[in-house]
Amino acid sequence: MTFKEMLDVVITRYEVRDIRFPTSQHLDGSDAMNKDPDYSAAYIVFYTDAEEPSLEGHGMTFTCGRGNETVCCCIKQLAVKFINKSLRELVSDMRSTHRICTGDSQLRWIGPEKGVVHLATGAVINAIWDLWAKAVKKPVWKLVVDMTPEEFVQCIDFRYITDVITPEEAIEMLRVNVPHKAEYESNVLVNGYPSYTTSAGWIGYSDEKVRRLIREARAEGFTIFKQKVGRDKAADVRRASLIRDEFGEKGTLMMDANQVWDVQEAIDWMQDLLPFKPLFIEEPTSPDDVLGHAAIRKALFPYTKVATGEHIQNRVIFKQLFQAEAIDFCQIDSCRVAGVNEILAILLMAKKYNIPVWPHAGGVGLCEYVQHLSLIDYICVTGTTEGRALEYVDHLHEHFIHPVIMKNGRYTAPLAPGYSIEMKRDSIEDYSFPNGKVHRQQ
Amino acid sequence: MTFKEMLDVVITRYEVRDIRFPTSQHLDGSDAMNKDPDYSAAYIVFYTDAEEPSLEGHGMTFTCGRGNETVCCCIKQLAVKFINKSLRELVSDMRSTHRICTGDSQLRWIGPEKGVVHLATGAVINAIWDLWAKAVKKPVWKLVVDMTPEEFVQCIDFRYITDVITPEEAIEMLRVNVPHKAEYESNVLVNGYPSYTTSAGWIGYSDEKVRRLIREARAEGFTIFKQKVGRDKAADVRRASLIRDEFGEKGTLMMDANQVWDVQEAIDWMQDLLPFKPLFIEEPTSPDDVLGHAAIRKALFPYTKVATGEHIQNRVIFKQLFQAEAIDFCQIDSCRVAGVNEILAILLMAKKYNIPVWPHAGGVGLCEYVQHLSLIDYICVTGTTEGRALEYVDHLHEHFIHPVIMKNGRYTAPLAPGYSIEMKRDSIEDYSFPNGKVHRQQ
Repeated sequence: MTFKEMLDVVITRYEVRDIRFPTSQHLDGSDAMNKDPDYSAAYIVFYTDAEEPSLEGHGMTFTCGRGNETVCCCIKQLAVKFINKSLRELVSDMRSTHRICTGDSQLRWIGPEKGVVHLATGAVINAIWDLWAKAVKKPVWKLVVDMTPEEFVQCIDFRYITDVITPEEAIEMLRVNVPHKAEYESNVLVNGYPSYTTSAGWIGYSDEKVRRLIREARAEGFTIFKQKVGRDKAADVRRASLIRDEFGEKGTLMMDANQVWDVQEAIDWMQDLLPFKPLFIEEPTSPDDVLGHAAIRKALFPYTKVATGEHIQNRVIFKQLFQAEAIDFCQIDSCRVAGVNEILAILLMAKKYNIPVWPHAGGVGLCEYVQHLSLIDYICVTGTTEGRALEYVDHLHEHFIHPVIMKNGRYTAPLAPGYSIEMKRDSIEDYSFPNGKVHRQQ
Repeated sequence: MTFKEMLDVVITRYEVRDIRFPTSQHLDGSDAMNKDPDYSAAYIVFYTDAEEPSLEGHGMTFTCGRGNETVCCCIKQLAVKFINKSLRELVSDMRSTHRICTGDSQLRWIGPEKGVVHLATGAVINAIWDLWAKAVKKPVWKLVVDMTPEEFVQCIDFRYITDVITPEEAIEMLRVNVPHKAEYESNVLVNGYPSYTTSAGWIGYSDEKVRRLIREARAEGFTIFKQKVGRDKAADVRRASLIRDEFGEKGTLMMDANQVWDVQEAIDWMQDLLPFKPLFIEEPTSPDDVLGHAAIRKALFPYTKVATGEHIQNRVIFKQLFQAEAIDFCQIDSCRVAGVNEILAILLMAKKYNIPVWPHAGGVGLCEYVQHLSLIDYICVTGTTEGRALEYVDHLHEHFIHPVIMKNGRYTAPLAPGYSIEMKRDSIEDYSFPNGKVHRQQ
């Protein structure tokens, strides 16, 4: 089949799997709010009528265990709408494709565009991007980089954000980078993309384990670390002191409270941590509290900055975080919002407000996804990697056919066609909940 | 069993049912966004070890059809946490009971406190209130009215709202009304609670049907009407003219756009409708857009006011709507937030900001629920019904064992023990989806 023919494939059926990794056994991923996550994937495969070679679109949404079955249930409700649709029909108008999920006149009641139905939308839309990228034999980032500004903008639903950015304005912003895209692309192919690690900072780890992990990470080239805070102030101070002791004043330290504080509590608690010069405090309070983040940012200025995003439900809340000058760092999550389409809208708004995008990663599959998004942000939108870093956590990559490849503490550009999210068939089977081999043995 | 013994019942099992009414056949409930809802209930029954008489707690969340199965799936995940708990244990610390649902360290990833998981929480928490009220043989409103200010406040989770209201401040607010509660209670027992109707204004109805329904509603005592707008401006103007023609300048007209507009679009569209003197425009844009509502309110002042609430996901967004002076009317929904507990928090914040609460109702079961909430608001929190009205829609009440009773366009105070939400067993069976009698016949 030629590329052209591959775009004419038709989606014939889907498979949804509830995949769970029992990470809570080792307190990987533990923080002040999420004390025992079982990193999980609500996973979908779209199958097509293509044979020899077959063509499949894989997508997933990350969750923390319980609740994964609810997201799977919702993915099925959305996936059925894609049966018998041709890939060409879907990708020739991605704005409408996005609305197949977000505009369902009955389903929107259980959102709209938030929580379970939006997490499910993220999995489904990303699976379409994976299918599209495989059909044209490019990684997703390259598929987007090769679009004209008009094609890029045609992927975005501007509903509810036109008071901040219009399609015309977005096209103008993207045109500025068109002459430089080839140069930026060759930069990332040579140098990769800067990253930081959270692997060392989980709240449930012992001091000795943290010290050892920091040394290992430094040996791998990482110079930016993130520490979880918010459960026990004395322990936070001790841990911060330990980290500064390990890598001195020059390394960059961030802190992450995972939403445990009320507004005034965040301001008060941080007073004892400011001496350790954190670059930012992440998720100091409810992700829904735009005005609360703005108040915290104002109170802590200029001693530290404010970051959030992994729990920001959609472009409308991001829009307000920018409008209210509530954050200094925009931490998009690849599957909490409605997939690549909505991410493109958020990248453009962040650029307009001059807020650097530091994607959330970790969990399972998030590193694989977000590397594409940072490359798009750099090559198409901002033209710089200065003052930016992409989160990296060293967990569960072995389950993916094309896992991220790190070099000297930087992400290398993924080259395989698709969105890098396809899991090995053995992993899908063994970790399926509750009947996969791993769960039967527990 | 005595009241005291009934509080010692233990929850032994639960039943979750996906109940759907095929309302889309007649365009009941049609508006600019929801063109064909099938009014549905994600329904739960908690059974206890009480025998002769048995004691059950019923709860539900309203949805528009598709998606109801996803909410049911999530309700099961929450309900299982209540098995083997005694009612006394649950109601002696309702703040902790609320956190059984909202504080699950894994489930909160798929919210937190929004969308499907929060709709499911509403059903579950409300079922506990129904069980509690039945155990003490009072309607839910009377159960709350008979609480001390301290007991009332103990039901509320103040997480993320202490920058606006603290437990101590809430107790002070409630104490003001304590000497007057008996008087207020006898007022509502005699006079009921003021209401308005949306039954006449659905966007899919013909002009003739609207005219007939208005005449019928006026004959029943209604003087406040709501019109759906936002799909076709010329039709909106014609419909507004027709309504004004029917009941003149003195009647109160409201308009409801059900989130169809962007911010500037809302401001522009309303220019042609302001001559009909709407009291407010409801849901002019995304329910997530606090700052957008504030901008619309400012632009339309003083010609009309702004209302929203049925899609406001939790107390954190309500808090910001108040802080940003974004709304003039607070339209709580009885099951979108986490049941009675979270509603109490919102009533207190509304009181603090002097914003009248006009609950959202209609759908199925919402009128039955919200009558209790307006009585609590009047008797415990505000001490007035002036400038307030509770929505009423004349649909599907026949399926409830204790349906709302309207008299002269006003709600009468419900007297049966519980939360008025228990459906008739025949209705539960016949409308169960997809295998109930009604659905097999279609």
